[in-house]
Amino acid sequence: MAKVSPRTLSGFMELLPAQQMKMERMMQILRESYALYGFTPLDTPIIESAEVLLAKGGGETEKQVYRFTKGDSDLALRFDLTVPLAKYVAQHYGELAFPFRRYQIGKVYRGERAQRGRFREFYQADIDVIGDGKLDILNEAEIPAIIYSTFTRLGLKKFKIRVNNRKLLNGFYAMNGMSEKAGEIMRTVDKLDKIGAEKVKQLLIDEVKMLPCKAENVLDFMAICGTNAEVIEALERYRGMDATFDQGLDELIAVTRYLRDFGVPEENFAVDLTIARGLDYYTGTVYETIMSDHPEIGSVCSGGRYDNLAEYYTDKQLPGVGISIGLTRLFYVLNEQGLLSDEIITAPCDALVLPMTEELGFAVAAATALRAAGVRTQLYGEKKKFKAKMAYADKIGVPFAVLIGEDEMNEGVLSVKDMKTGEQVKLTPADAAAHIAERVAAMNSGSVIKE
Amino acid sequence: MAKVSPRTLSGFMELLPAQQMKMERMMQILRESYALYGFTPLDTPIIESAEVLLAKGGGETEKQVYRFTKGDSDLALRFDLTVPLAKYVAQHYGELAFPFRRYQIGKVYRGERAQRGRFREFYQADIDVIGDGKLDILNEAEIPAIIYSTFTRLGLKKFKIRVNNRKLLNGFYAMNGMSEKAGEIMRTVDKLDKIGAEKVKQLLIDEVKMLPCKAENVLDFMAICGTNAEVIEALERYRGMDATFDQGLDELIAVTRYLRDFGVPEENFAVDLTIARGLDYYTGTVYETIMSDHPEIGSVCSGGRYDNLAEYYTDKQLPGVGISIGLTRLFYVLNEQGLLSDEIITAPCDALVLPMTEELGFAVAAATALRAAGVRTQLYGEKKKFKAKMAYADKIGVPFAVLIGEDEMNEGVLSVKDMKTGEQVKLTPADAAAHIAERVAAMNSGSVIKE
Repeated sequence: MAKVSPRTLSGFMELLPAQQMKMERMMQILRESYALYGFTPLDTPIIESAEVLLAKGGGETEKQVYRFTKGDSDLALRFDLTVPLAKYVAQHYGELAFPFRRYQIGKVYRGERAQRGRFREFYQADIDVIGDGKLDILNEAEIPAIIYSTFTRLGLKKFKIRVNNRKLLNGFYAMNGMSEKAGEIMRTVDKLDKIGAEKVKQLLIDEVKMLPCKAENVLDFMAICGTNAEVIEALERYRGMDATFDQGLDELIAVTRYLRDFGVPEENFAVDLTIARGLDYYTGTVYETIMSDHPEIGSVCSGGRYDNLAEYYTDKQLPGVGISIGLTRLFYVLNEQGLLSDEIITAPCDALVLPMTEELGFAVAAATALRAAGVRTQLYGEKKKFKAKMAYADKIGVPFAVLIGEDEMNEGVLSVKDMKTGEQVKLTPADAAAHIAERVAAMNSGSVIKE
Repeated sequence: MAKVSPRTLSGFMELLPAQQMKMERMMQILRESYALYGFTPLDTPIIESAEVLLAKGGGETEKQVYRFTKGDSDLALRFDLTVPLAKYVAQHYGELAFPFRRYQIGKVYRGERAQRGRFREFYQADIDVIGDGKLDILNEAEIPAIIYSTFTRLGLKKFKIRVNNRKLLNGFYAMNGMSEKAGEIMRTVDKLDKIGAEKVKQLLIDEVKMLPCKAENVLDFMAICGTNAEVIEALERYRGMDATFDQGLDELIAVTRYLRDFGVPEENFAVDLTIARGLDYYTGTVYETIMSDHPEIGSVCSGGRYDNLAEYYTDKQLPGVGISIGLTRLFYVLNEQGLLSDEIITAPCDALVLPMTEELGFAVAAATALRAAGVRTQLYGEKKKFKAKMAYADKIGVPFAVLIGEDEMNEGVLSVKDMKTGEQVKLTPADAAAHIAERVAAMNSGSVIKE
């Protein structure tokens, strides 16, 4: 028979088992962490009506979207988790309690040009808090506190959540009479990290057509840095010139104060006036998160405050604040950087039961006892030579092999072999389960990310 | 602005938060249960090359598949998890250890005619064991043992795993000289449950063109029932007439004996000669699982032994055995039948911290303490009246409200209100955490399914 070449599409991540175990562990930590902060899990369809998904329309997104027809239906694959959330909240408004706090970890699709480290199918892990009409500023501080806690649980240490406020920026541009050019200026200033202050200034003068003194004002403002207290002190000098600016400053002060209350160390968050987030969607606090040793990767977790989640679906005013981890990309980067731990168990099981006899009743009972004690156990039933069995144990990387021969059956014990040290002990099934469970817990106590 | 009506496509399940919590709980139990038996989680793309996905081609499946182009690529959405597994194993053959045991819980897509209880996007939860060349019969017994254990963990009691063996059927047809008509006969016999023996016999005579005595042979064989021992005893009378039959009988005897060793009670599994599974794919043991009080629902978990997983992709002989739970449909049915528990906590959090003062520092610290103790905690920061706050607590169904006013702040305590009993106690943050954690654990100790 002619064979079809088995292959995975480019831009689609498909992991080998050991890697997948690390990914699963990351996802499980995200689920637990988000749940701990009182977010409810949602699961919306991957396919939606194109009209619903593209209600906003326009932009790069529309070009990248996977869109197709089935029967009479014009369909599209979701390209983020925010639009489905907006649809969900508008659709089920009457049945939800506000603030509505949800997390969603799911695949999204963008037909981007394929390149290394860019994915067409990738996981986003989102949290959002949606208010009905109003939403307190406290939420804008809690969101980065959750990200701090989540990244810490994952084992990341060297990261910084950069916080800014759009009202502060809009107010600053207003007080300088540059409101109309604000969008253009922000897009140019966004290049600071890449091309430096001098070139940005030149672009502001040449392309945005700003007066040199105004361009300097912008760069002076963007250059404000130091500790969070120092940045806020510098910003206080602009107070009283624009109401929006003052409001943004008050919000920023509140957010930084609450972040301290939440126990986020200052080394993990910083006010950074240069971040704006490209979208015109955000209206208050905005966030980006960089890995301190790898700023070149860009933001691995971004979001902010918006005033109108679902304006394309409903007249209800639904302000919210949210943040999204690009999980597939984060995993890819961590793996590339060698930051994923090889110490945690990535085998399909903790114990591999290897019967050396024809009669399997005792081996089945042993596997059942181990499982009852929570030990992930594989019962190996293949008729192979001892050497082949041990080679299998090695290949899957199982921490413990449990050998059962005539002797063990007669004595009612299991020979438990530590595959790393080679140490082998005879134990009753109950003692073997306790022994393995204890060692496995110790091996798994480490973090999935090792910096 | 003109609004787009927010809606979810028909045939796509989208749950409200409390329902979604139950679904998540089911999925988490499946993940834990499958892992306990030494299966590794896999995650393959939802989109594959159409050529790869439809390598087998033909049949109903191809008509139902979501297929579309993007750029030059002819793409399709997976319609099950078996074809992607075949691709994966063929593609990564050299990097996998065999037997390869994987579980996958993921969405699959079939553009079926929309009708109540039928889904176009639905979760399957699959386990498979793949051998390289050979695979021991023990695996064919372990698979239903895992399903027994998993369903029991979910809280299902009244279910029966029906087990049969294709070799037994093929051998029986061979000894009666009916091999060529075997497929047609099996499809007709499949209607036994629905139309009864008399009508099946008539169809066998009229449409399959069988002699009445042969049709009676078939019905006599299919009518064999009783305890598993009785069925096997009855089957022994056919031994010695066909080698394939004898092999099938030996396998069936081995499977039933191992199932006892695995501790599966006889009330939950039964040899049933009427099940065949429609596909020509299966070659040995086959399974179906019915809910005993609701046989009309049909099988909620099916599978079997196959000899050649990946024949469209590789010359390697890869026999396997697997089973699949139609999770979305199972969830739908359980919900319709009122079998999902309302006792487990479905709120987004276990504790809702309600500050009654302007100053939130103490409330933030309280929420942090509760979370550190593993209590899923929401901090309510909205400036609302007390009544509105309590209405919110009621609406989300949170088991505990934690009230913090001036008094509590001064005394350094939390007022913990049990929302069900109305009982309110003042406790230190640490005691409050322990108190709530203990009650929550008790509330969550029940099963998600209540029969």
